[in-house]
Amino acid sequence: MGISSGNTPYAARTDRSAVRGHAITFAGDPFVSERAFVDIPDALIVSERGIITAFGNYEDMKRAVPEGVPVTHYPRSLICAGFIDTHIHYVQTGIIGAYGSQLIDWLETYTFVEEQRFAAKSYADAVAKVFFDQLLANGTTTAVTFCAVYPGSVDAFFEESLRRRTRMIGGKVLMDRNAPDGLLDTAQRAYDDSKALIKKWHGCGRSCYAITPRFAPTSTPEQLELAGTLWREHPGTFVHTHVSENVSEIQWVRSLFPERSGYLDVYDHYGLLGKRCVLAHGVHLSERECARISETGAAVAHCPTSNLFLGSGLFHIHEAKDPRRPMHVGLGTDIGAGTSFSLLATMNEAYKVAELNHYPLNAIKSFYLATLGGAKALGLGSEIGSLSVGKEADFVVLDPAATPLLAYRSARAKSTEELMFVLSIMGDDRAVAATYVAGELAFERKGRENV
Amino acid sequence: MGISSGNTPYAARTDRSAVRGHAITFAGDPFVSERAFVDIPDALIVSERGIITAFGNYEDMKRAVPEGVPVTHYPRSLICAGFIDTHIHYVQTGIIGAYGSQLIDWLETYTFVEEQRFAAKSYADAVAKVFFDQLLANGTTTAVTFCAVYPGSVDAFFEESLRRRTRMIGGKVLMDRNAPDGLLDTAQRAYDDSKALIKKWHGCGRSCYAITPRFAPTSTPEQLELAGTLWREHPGTFVHTHVSENVSEIQWVRSLFPERSGYLDVYDHYGLLGKRCVLAHGVHLSERECARISETGAAVAHCPTSNLFLGSGLFHIHEAKDPRRPMHVGLGTDIGAGTSFSLLATMNEAYKVAELNHYPLNAIKSFYLATLGGAKALGLGSEIGSLSVGKEADFVVLDPAATPLLAYRSARAKSTEELMFVLSIMGDDRAVAATYVAGELAFERKGRENV
Repeated sequence: MGISSGNTPYAARTDRSAVRGHAITFAGDPFVSERAFVDIPDALIVSERGIITAFGNYEDMKRAVPEGVPVTHYPRSLICAGFIDTHIHYVQTGIIGAYGSQLIDWLETYTFVEEQRFAAKSYADAVAKVFFDQLLANGTTTAVTFCAVYPGSVDAFFEESLRRRTRMIGGKVLMDRNAPDGLLDTAQRAYDDSKALIKKWHGCGRSCYAITPRFAPTSTPEQLELAGTLWREHPGTFVHTHVSENVSEIQWVRSLFPERSGYLDVYDHYGLLGKRCVLAHGVHLSERECARISETGAAVAHCPTSNLFLGSGLFHIHEAKDPRRPMHVGLGTDIGAGTSFSLLATMNEAYKVAELNHYPLNAIKSFYLATLGGAKALGLGSEIGSLSVGKEADFVVLDPAATPLLAYRSARAKSTEELMFVLSIMGDDRAVAATYVAGELAFERKGRENV
Repeated sequence: MGISSGNTPYAARTDRSAVRGHAITFAGDPFVSERAFVDIPDALIVSERGIITAFGNYEDMKRAVPEGVPVTHYPRSLICAGFIDTHIHYVQTGIIGAYGSQLIDWLETYTFVEEQRFAAKSYADAVAKVFFDQLLANGTTTAVTFCAVYPGSVDAFFEESLRRRTRMIGGKVLMDRNAPDGLLDTAQRAYDDSKALIKKWHGCGRSCYAITPRFAPTSTPEQLELAGTLWREHPGTFVHTHVSENVSEIQWVRSLFPERSGYLDVYDHYGLLGKRCVLAHGVHLSERECARISETGAAVAHCPTSNLFLGSGLFHIHEAKDPRRPMHVGLGTDIGAGTSFSLLATMNEAYKVAELNHYPLNAIKSFYLATLGGAKALGLGSEIGSLSVGKEADFVVLDPAATPLLAYRSARAKSTEELMFVLSIMGDDRAVAATYVAGELAFERKGRENV
């Protein structure tokens, strides 16, 4: 089963569009070579039926604009591929900024209470709408999201995604122990429900399904075993879970799985590591675990606002991208433990976490993590994450003058890279002027703030 | 010499005002007792000639509204004392978000270049205007700011403050070594210029002067000696400098002052510690240094966005407020190494830094640090920092529904404290609906964002 169907229900309603402006994108991984960065001060992006059909310097390409298609010009902007949020919980939209505890307490006090509300489909529908509004207002066009344990919460998510025509990855959370009764499934029911949801949603429009054990402590060995079976039975689907976020959590996993060599090895044992497996956090991975993730092609979602908010620790991006055993890494907001839907705000905190580790994470690298790096982490490097012919036409128009202070600072930027860095440190949702999904305008900010 | 003159040129242009809304303030230090927190769901604040003349429950107090004075009602708001930013560099407004280095490199690459532009009074005037616009748009009514080495940069700052009628603290930076020639003064010229500026500005309107050696490495022993003399000669003035921000910086100080027992002891030796001395950062203070700061009555400005941005380290608020030897602590944005003018954004990062140190910093404490805690740190606890009769009428009206997401989250808050926490984690300048200075509306946000 592929990730997109032949009969594309997500083709742009307006078949063709053309956008002009300063564009940046990537032709490779800037952690390997800075030459991977592509900077086109006056670029043209033409898309047809949701796919980019022409991209390059405007003067060279302008004859590629189909007759009758107007060119939307963003003269003082920075256009890049849509942001990719590689780890988020849509069902935690309502509990952002919940005070006072580290991971395990936070789950029990806030998360497990809120997620029970998603037993009602109507509640899930309402939150899904808020969630997608926030994603698009923040320039995020792909997100890898946890749903709740209830199949209806997955339906609500993908139904909304179909309406928005976005490429989204999600799945029903699997939990058969160590959570309130109302949130528990069983190993078999988790298998059956997930199987039905895969059939219903994976490849429907641009939807991708992720088999989603919350984390090792809330799944029995039987459930993890069946999750691995399910993944083998459905090639092309994803796995989405958490690993090594918090020191106490790691100790808990060790006590629950004493026969395994460590936290990561639990997933490895049950066949849950490999390409299209997204492991959130990985703050405290050992060298051996990093090597194993690299070897299997799994990816880590770095979620700095969350790691700081819950006091989990400082992810080592430099070590994660060690060329001797590089891991795929994307950025994640991890709403609701993360504190912002904005991938720009997430880059801000990724920079700070890296600084505390004495590694200067430049803006070229952080924009890569938020776009093509995320896409490659998901095995979707051929579909999304960069501006090039044949890619899906998801992109974001950033406004470096979105607020008076940003305008004041941006005007002093001497290079595209400096402008990108300023946006990554000072930008938030206000810096997103427009978001295009499958070639079509999906969000447009109405007027700058008038302070 | 007092801090305010008898003939108050800062009296409100509209002599009297009355504001109604949900107010929170402090009657003491919540690090000592949570009962210090005052929460009045429907409060009235009456001010006359810049001073609060009535404050309390609206129904009880409404007869205190002078005849003919309209009551401005903010029904869905949270009103608190104006924010106090205990450490900021107005002359670095233009270099927020400068990429890639830790303290010493950052100073040389960006700061020392930018500050030379303030030799031109016209440049200083223009930046001062931007700076005050940002302060008030962020609800900050008092800031302790570095100016540049040039007296004209101090004039520009206080002239703008007089126009805004704000209580501000600032001073000419003292540097007679280890900086570019264009930024150097001499020990004697620093003394003479500062003396003249004190005479001109300290006590003019609500202006307070701070004797401002940048930090030990850029002042010779002679300059520090004269700075100490100057302070003794002008009781009531402030001292403003940096201490123990970065590990390399501390080593540098040790090599420059081998005869002193440590970084703090340099200032101590030259008579620069005491009440109304503000030491920025203090990330790496020893136990002995904390005790000495506590003993002298000096204060530390905790600047979390800056400490993260420059990778300086994690301030220990819990240890700083240790009841056995509590230090005065305020919050600082430290623009331009800090990444936001917003004290709300600063509270967000203060929470995260505390979480990394396994200490949950609740919103009551963080709002205290940003208001009365800051005021007490400055020895201005009788003038500003809380809502009570006799205090200067500086306050901020926060809007818990400033953005769609904030509105969505705030609506779920079950207590005033939860609402405060949500504002501190998700709020930014948009959450400031209005700022009052000396009883008069000084900033009003024009319309919510219409996403």
